[in-house]
Amino acid sequence: NETIKAELGRASWKLLHTILARYPEKPTAEEREALSSYIYLFSRVYPCGECASHFQKLLKKFPPQTSSRVAASQWGCHIHNQVNARLGKKIFDCNTIAEKYQCGC
Amino acid sequence: NETIKAELGRASWKLLHTILARYPEKPTAEEREALSSYIYLFSRVYPCGECASHFQKLLKKFPPQTSSRVAASQWGCHIHNQVNARLGKKIFDCNTIAEKYQCGC
Ligand SMILES: Cc1cc2nc3c(=O)[nH]c(=O)nc-3n(C[C@H](O)[C@H](O)[C@H](O)COP(=O)(O)OP(=O)(O)OC[C@H]3O[C@@H](n4cnc5c(N)ncnc54)[C@H](O)[C@@H]3O)c2cc1C
Ligand SMILES: Cc1cc2nc3c(=O)[nH]c(=O)nc-3n(C[C@H](O)[C@H](O)[C@H](O)COP(=O)(O)OP(=O)(O)OC[C@H]3O[C@@H](n4cnc5c(N)ncnc54)[C@H](O)[C@@H]3O)c2cc1C
Repeated sequence: NETIKAELGRASWKLLHTILARYPEKPTAEEREALSSYIYLFSRVYPCGECASHFQKLLKKFPPQTSSRVAASQWGCHIHNQVNARLGKKIFDCNTIAEKYQCGC
Repeated sequence: NETIKAELGRASWKLLHTILARYPEKPTAEEREALSSYIYLFSRVYPCGECASHFQKLLKKFPPQTSSRVAASQWGCHIHNQVNARLGKKIFDCNTIAEKYQCGC
């Protein structure tokens, strides 16, 4: 059970950080709205109930930053670090995020 | 590049199928709306542009089925098989989907 939860978490973070890494540098109003809605809906449909409700609280405290690619990616790194801290995991260095997540598409 | 695209695809399918496997058996109107919106937004923010635009066309042909867990999971399996077919991959047996995707949360 813990293994399944961890694998799902890794898959979800990979998708989320890659979405943010490919988010436009200068998003339109529609793109901003789409990203923000996507993140809130993600927090509602996320299959681990305990994780979802904790993440919803984090979103209230740290709403998605959608003004630019850098803002969005740094926000994603920060909120992942909040989860890391809660779970007693290592804090990730957000200066290295742009190198780590690429898509190649 | 192809490796990154494939890893991102695997992560995304895992998340999507697990969401569908944990979707309520008897969803409320709000839950139906949340899942449907999530899927359409996913198709807009998906980081691989070619994949996203192909997936958007598939969604027009095969809109998300949100009436129940079984309907949603079978829809997810079917649409993944549409992508498999296009990429020349093996077709997955949708009768085995309930065993394959669990969350344990
Ligand atoms: C929204 C969400 C909420 C979650 N809530 C819970 C919970 O409440 N309880 C629970 O047990 N599990 C939760 N999880 C799962 C948990 O966060 C981990 O995914 C899981 O424990 C596996 O951890 P991991 O050590 O393999 O690394 P993960 O945290 O899954 O990270 C994967 C990889 O991303 C990189 N990374 C690490 N930190 C960052 C960062 N800040 N920014 C960018 N990249 C980074 C590292 O290379 C790491 O190996 C949640 C997952 C998600 C997506
Ligand atoms: C929305 C979306 C669109 C994509 N579009 C493209 C594209 O246009 N071009 C491109 O090159 N790549 C695309 N990809 C990536 C591609 O679908 C694969 O994820 C990638 O090629 C890796 O394939 P894989 O063989 O490892 O298995 P994947 O297709 O990633 O599947 C992962 C695992 O899921 C299981 N599985 C397989 N089929 C099903 C099914 N029908 N239902 C449930 N479980 C199943 C199997 O165990 C499989 O190993 C897309 C991905 C997504 C999420």
